[in-house]
Amino acid sequence: MTARKNRIRLGMVGGGQDAFIGQVHRIAARLDDRYELVAGVLSSTFERSRVSGSAIGLHEDRIYRDYAEMARIEATRPDGIEAVAIVTPNHLHFDACKTFLEQEIHVICDKPVTTTLDEAKELERLIAESGCHFLLTHNYTGYPMIREARRLVAEGALGAIRLVNVEYIQEWLAAGNEGKQAEWRLDPVRAGAGGCIGDIGTHAFHLGCYVSGLIPTGLSADLHSFGKDRILDDNAHIKLRFAGGARGMIWASQVAIGYENGVKLRIIGEKGGLEFFQEDPNKLWFNELGGVKTLLTRGGARFGGQARIPAGHPEGFLEAFATLYAEFADIIRGDDSSETALPGISDGISGLNFIHSAVRSSQDDGAWVDLVFPA
Amino acid sequence: MTARKNRIRLGMVGGGQDAFIGQVHRIAARLDDRYELVAGVLSSTFERSRVSGSAIGLHEDRIYRDYAEMARIEATRPDGIEAVAIVTPNHLHFDACKTFLEQEIHVICDKPVTTTLDEAKELERLIAESGCHFLLTHNYTGYPMIREARRLVAEGALGAIRLVNVEYIQEWLAAGNEGKQAEWRLDPVRAGAGGCIGDIGTHAFHLGCYVSGLIPTGLSADLHSFGKDRILDDNAHIKLRFAGGARGMIWASQVAIGYENGVKLRIIGEKGGLEFFQEDPNKLWFNELGGVKTLLTRGGARFGGQARIPAGHPEGFLEAFATLYAEFADIIRGDDSSETALPGISDGISGLNFIHSAVRSSQDDGAWVDLVFPA
Amino acid sequence: MTARKNRIRLGMVGGGQDAFIGQVHRIAARLDDRYELVAGVLSSTFERSRVSGSAIGLHEDRIYRDYAEMARIEATRPDGIEAVAIVTPNHLHFDACKTFLEQEIHVICDKPVTTTLDEAKELERLIAESGCHFLLTHNYTGYPMIREARRLVAEGALGAIRLVNVEYIQEWLAAGNEGKQAEWRLDPVRAGAGGCIGDIGTHAFHLGCYVSGLIPTGLSADLHSFGKDRILDDNAHIKLRFAGGARGMIWASQVAIGYENGVKLRIIGEKGGLEFFQEDPNKLWFNELGGVKTLLTRGGARFGGQARIPAGHPEGFLEAFATLYAEFADIIRGDDSSETALPGISDGISGLNFIHSAVRSSQDDGAWVDLVFPA
Amino acid sequence: MTARKNRIRLGMVGGGQDAFIGQVHRIAARLDDRYELVAGVLSSTFERSRVSGSAIGLHEDRIYRDYAEMARIEATRPDGIEAVAIVTPNHLHFDACKTFLEQEIHVICDKPVTTTLDEAKELERLIAESGCHFLLTHNYTGYPMIREARRLVAEGALGAIRLVNVEYIQEWLAAGNEGKQAEWRLDPVRAGAGGCIGDIGTHAFHLGCYVSGLIPTGLSADLHSFGKDRILDDNAHIKLRFAGGARGMIWASQVAIGYENGVKLRIIGEKGGLEFFQEDPNKLWFNELGGVKTLLTRGGARFGGQARIPAGHPEGFLEAFATLYAEFADIIRGDDSSETALPGISDGISGLNFIHSAVRSSQDDGAWVDLVFPA
Repeated sequence: MTARKNRIRLGMVGGGQDAFIGQVHRIAARLDDRYELVAGVLSSTFERSRVSGSAIGLHEDRIYRDYAEMARIEATRPDGIEAVAIVTPNHLHFDACKTFLEQEIHVICDKPVTTTLDEAKELERLIAESGCHFLLTHNYTGYPMIREARRLVAEGALGAIRLVNVEYIQEWLAAGNEGKQAEWRLDPVRAGAGGCIGDIGTHAFHLGCYVSGLIPTGLSADLHSFGKDRILDDNAHIKLRFAGGARGMIWASQVAIGYENGVKLRIIGEKGGLEFFQEDPNKLWFNELGGVKTLLTRGGARFGGQARIPAGHPEGFLEAFATLYAEFADIIRGDDSSETALPGISDGISGLNFIHSAVRSSQDDGAWVDLVFPA
Repeated sequence: MTARKNRIRLGMVGGGQDAFIGQVHRIAARLDDRYELVAGVLSSTFERSRVSGSAIGLHEDRIYRDYAEMARIEATRPDGIEAVAIVTPNHLHFDACKTFLEQEIHVICDKPVTTTLDEAKELERLIAESGCHFLLTHNYTGYPMIREARRLVAEGALGAIRLVNVEYIQEWLAAGNEGKQAEWRLDPVRAGAGGCIGDIGTHAFHLGCYVSGLIPTGLSADLHSFGKDRILDDNAHIKLRFAGGARGMIWASQVAIGYENGVKLRIIGEKGGLEFFQEDPNKLWFNELGGVKTLLTRGGARFGGQARIPAGHPEGFLEAFATLYAEFADIIRGDDSSETALPGISDGISGLNFIHSAVRSSQDDGAWVDLVFPA
Repeated sequence: MTARKNRIRLGMVGGGQDAFIGQVHRIAARLDDRYELVAGVLSSTFERSRVSGSAIGLHEDRIYRDYAEMARIEATRPDGIEAVAIVTPNHLHFDACKTFLEQEIHVICDKPVTTTLDEAKELERLIAESGCHFLLTHNYTGYPMIREARRLVAEGALGAIRLVNVEYIQEWLAAGNEGKQAEWRLDPVRAGAGGCIGDIGTHAFHLGCYVSGLIPTGLSADLHSFGKDRILDDNAHIKLRFAGGARGMIWASQVAIGYENGVKLRIIGEKGGLEFFQEDPNKLWFNELGGVKTLLTRGGARFGGQARIPAGHPEGFLEAFATLYAEFADIIRGDDSSETALPGISDGISGLNFIHSAVRSSQDDGAWVDLVFPA
Repeated sequence: MTARKNRIRLGMVGGGQDAFIGQVHRIAARLDDRYELVAGVLSSTFERSRVSGSAIGLHEDRIYRDYAEMARIEATRPDGIEAVAIVTPNHLHFDACKTFLEQEIHVICDKPVTTTLDEAKELERLIAESGCHFLLTHNYTGYPMIREARRLVAEGALGAIRLVNVEYIQEWLAAGNEGKQAEWRLDPVRAGAGGCIGDIGTHAFHLGCYVSGLIPTGLSADLHSFGKDRILDDNAHIKLRFAGGARGMIWASQVAIGYENGVKLRIIGEKGGLEFFQEDPNKLWFNELGGVKTLLTRGGARFGGQARIPAGHPEGFLEAFATLYAEFADIIRGDDSSETALPGISDGISGLNFIHSAVRSSQDDGAWVDLVFPA
């Protein structure tokens, strides 16, 4: 990990008081000491933005009225921000990303990247044009054991992959549409076409593809809303097909009482299988044909990945998030020697494709819909 | 548990040496001392049948050439069998059941009950006509914690059910079609239209219905064979719909490396959820809306069911199987005071319906197929 | 498994209605079809003995007034019992064993074998004199994974053993001295000098020695009674030393709220370690120096032991108990080819030695007391 | 969490490159943005200190030759450090702490606080004299579920405590004395009288007292070295007694193959029990008399503690460590409204007392030694 003098100057859009994910981004940025947060538009009103910004120690003159102003002014300062984190509700992602890319500022953006596939594709164009780097925070890819899983698959330890089964089940919307966190996630205008599948289904889909290395070719979806007066889905059952013949399933739910943040991944091949559970993320099961079941840990014999602290000293959600930030800092500084591609705009396009295809399939009573994976 | 003098005289068809399930039935019959095995046709040849029968202590004159002879002679003996266990490959179930029912001998039969839906319906008619009792060994319903789960749902502890998710995943056919156990299960003539979904998918389907108490109304299936030269499915991904609006999923697989006999059941309602895992069957998770997660055990405070031995002294697969046998003995003896309906012919018809509908849906690229549940 | 015609004729002393362990012995005897229970004195009064005996199907003329009568008469019958199970409270073990051995009837006896070390030694002499076989039901040794653990140690997979840590913790006496099961266990006259250490501590001690293969040489004990008006210990903390330098600990408790029958065994050597938990007995952790953690199951690749049913189909407490009965049947019939020594009188002497030494050490404020292991 | 402008200026002694714990302290200090690391003596030579300091971004003129110089100069700077973290090997703690306290700089110090009890007591005097705040990083007290456990005990949810059982078992010294981390921990000069009991046993002891709220009154210890040529203990078996009659056990080991950082805590009272396992720190079992077993999580219904991120998003070792830092910042700034006393010098004295008593008891063959808990 590198030095303070080399810290990346970071801005933030969104993430005011009460926002869960803004705080996560700030800790992630700070954890490995690679960023310094220096500017922001944290809330939708200037008044609240000033309160939030001041509370986290931003200088008054770098708390802006809106992100357009922020992008314009920061781009001209000699000590202006080099990167920005976009942590607003989904519908604002596109324009905010566009605004900063046009000022040649690197972008870190929450998923799903936009609310429409067209916007996602337009963003891809803008990124290429700007020459900037773009990080989409599919944060579960930052877990050491997810990296290990991906490596085991890539090295052929499982043989040809046959099955990809991903669950992402939560209980927090089982009771009703309560709270600020729920409000925008259930509003099609701000969240986009997908409710549960947009908010967490895209993580499940991305993780299945990321670890298996497979190209998804089609899906058949059953989206459903159990919550009263809820327009967007709060539960999704999805069958998947992949190039090469593998099959898969996704179960995403926000009404699954008993499950707090239950991301479970199972990848099974001709020679072996893997199982990972996000709520116990320092472990990975590797099961081999013939009955040998090995529990891999960050410190386990077969594992080659990095870790901040020794095995048995659990790292969690924030550390995985921070790993994406730290690796993105390497990329910005041109130091990247990582073998792991960070999630970027092509993952964003793929996610939008997934959301739209799932909605379409479900509206068509579960008919199989082709998925075109970005080249 | 009642006395030896009252033991039910039992015959067996199938279950010769090397057969896994015949041995299970014999231990189950013996465990609570309610049956005495006195006659049998254990193998397809008389020679092997005599060797197997003798090895388990049958008298020579009650080891028969075929089950037709056995039914005919036993029916006339004053000490003839009162019940028979049919543990052959699937394609022989129907005729064997018919033969004994015609002699007014009670029948215990492995699932799936027949290979076609028509046979299953014909069997239903024959059972009614005979006045005999009929037990279909959906053995997982014998677990105390499955009974407890069913009771919790019936008592409304979960509120209206929203989600039924059942997995039954195994690894034993991942390598190839090896062994006698595999051979007939993969042969459409002997196993019927379903491979994995017939052998284990029907258990998953039955368990989901048994515990939830819901009526399934439709399914959309993706059956697949990963094994080389395999005609029948070895993996199934199935979406379910139930009367009242609940949704479900079944994942049944026999190529899931790392999973020995992974039956996992999750039932989630408006107010709570349940989770059961067959490989650790003395436990049941009961999770309530609001975050309270309780681990119920056979000895737990809320549990009212019976058990042979105290909590913490694990009962397993054989004990659950034996419970079905013991309760069936009560029914035969007219002592039944159980609140729990044992699995019977209507469950068999429902299972065949499930298999055929899944095959049809899968052939029609996953189109939703209506399920008509037996009245 | 052998045939009915070859069944061993079994008698039982103790195990009337409401007795937990008598029912366990009967199921264990029946499970593998190697015994037929034909005679008994099940309760302390003839009246209750007749009710209990009749309920389990004993013929009236083989329900006896007392075990002396039973031993005398059965010894003269041509179809008299060949073996007897002694399942009374501890203080009756010695005289009952003696009585049957003098009639040359094989004995199966619950632990602890007697209430005093002198009796245990005397019993050893009587067994040798009689030429009979003697089984002490340290039933946890019947678990396949305990056998596997012992084998791994014996084969050197762990290297020289350094640490033996055994817990046997229960909660059932936390509230008070309720119930018939509790009553005699807490009475020094009927239970002997040890409460919790006699009832379950001896299991823990035996299991640690059985799996490690080590000779215990000394202990330092802290016995305590938390229950009101309780004379015997309900909690024990014991430090152990073994020949060769290994160290150990035993924690036995019957006031450990939250633990139903928590037998946990950890054996750690120079090259590896094992962990077994009785409430999930189909599994065994094998951890190797260098970080590889393998979960062994009955069906696992490295395992060579027998099992009635395939991996993933859980066997439990009754099956382990039954394995001791089946193997003892082999020994009685002279068919024994087992490599595993069944627990016998020397284990009983060792257990009494353990109890008395622990009591002595505790009375001497935890001073180390030498253990003399029977040769 | 408060603002950057209010950050506490922090110095560090120890924690150069390759040091595990220095990096942990730095992340912990940074995580909640309450500290800014501005000065340091990170290694024992100026040369290496400069390399390490520069690598983490310290200004050249605030990397010092030794801590005496650092304390002197920083105390005179208007922007001098307000607090210092002492993360050297144990034998340097005392003098370093003394030096900074004399300059009225607040101190954060690793455990064990000193190598002798006399030094610890002298330090207590110096702290009182200086008017400074002192934090001893018994970091496991920072876990939300440990706080919850302590609260449940304090509120009487368990009734009077009967049993305190703590394990802290690791495998990292099983092979040999390899690596820099091992070197000083096994050297009596630098580590003090305790090996394993000093390094991790003190954590176990502290945690048992912290959660139970009990005063330990005596111990009986068996310390042992399994490693070749090792002077200090690498395994400890300790029996404990507490005021009021509770009993306890500690098992601390660094040769326990299979266990990475296995801190397990069980507290059992008359009405309930708790179980916590450090490698899965977002969970806490609460078991009530009568059989109800509840799994509490950070988000569970009964839990009132704070958390940075929602339940199901695992926090780990670094977050718990950071919580101590954040709360200490509150204390320094005079904002403390916490109900939880942070570990301080009295815990350090208690820990030294524990180490010395354990060594003495073990040398005296396990005789009980009185523990005098600091008033």
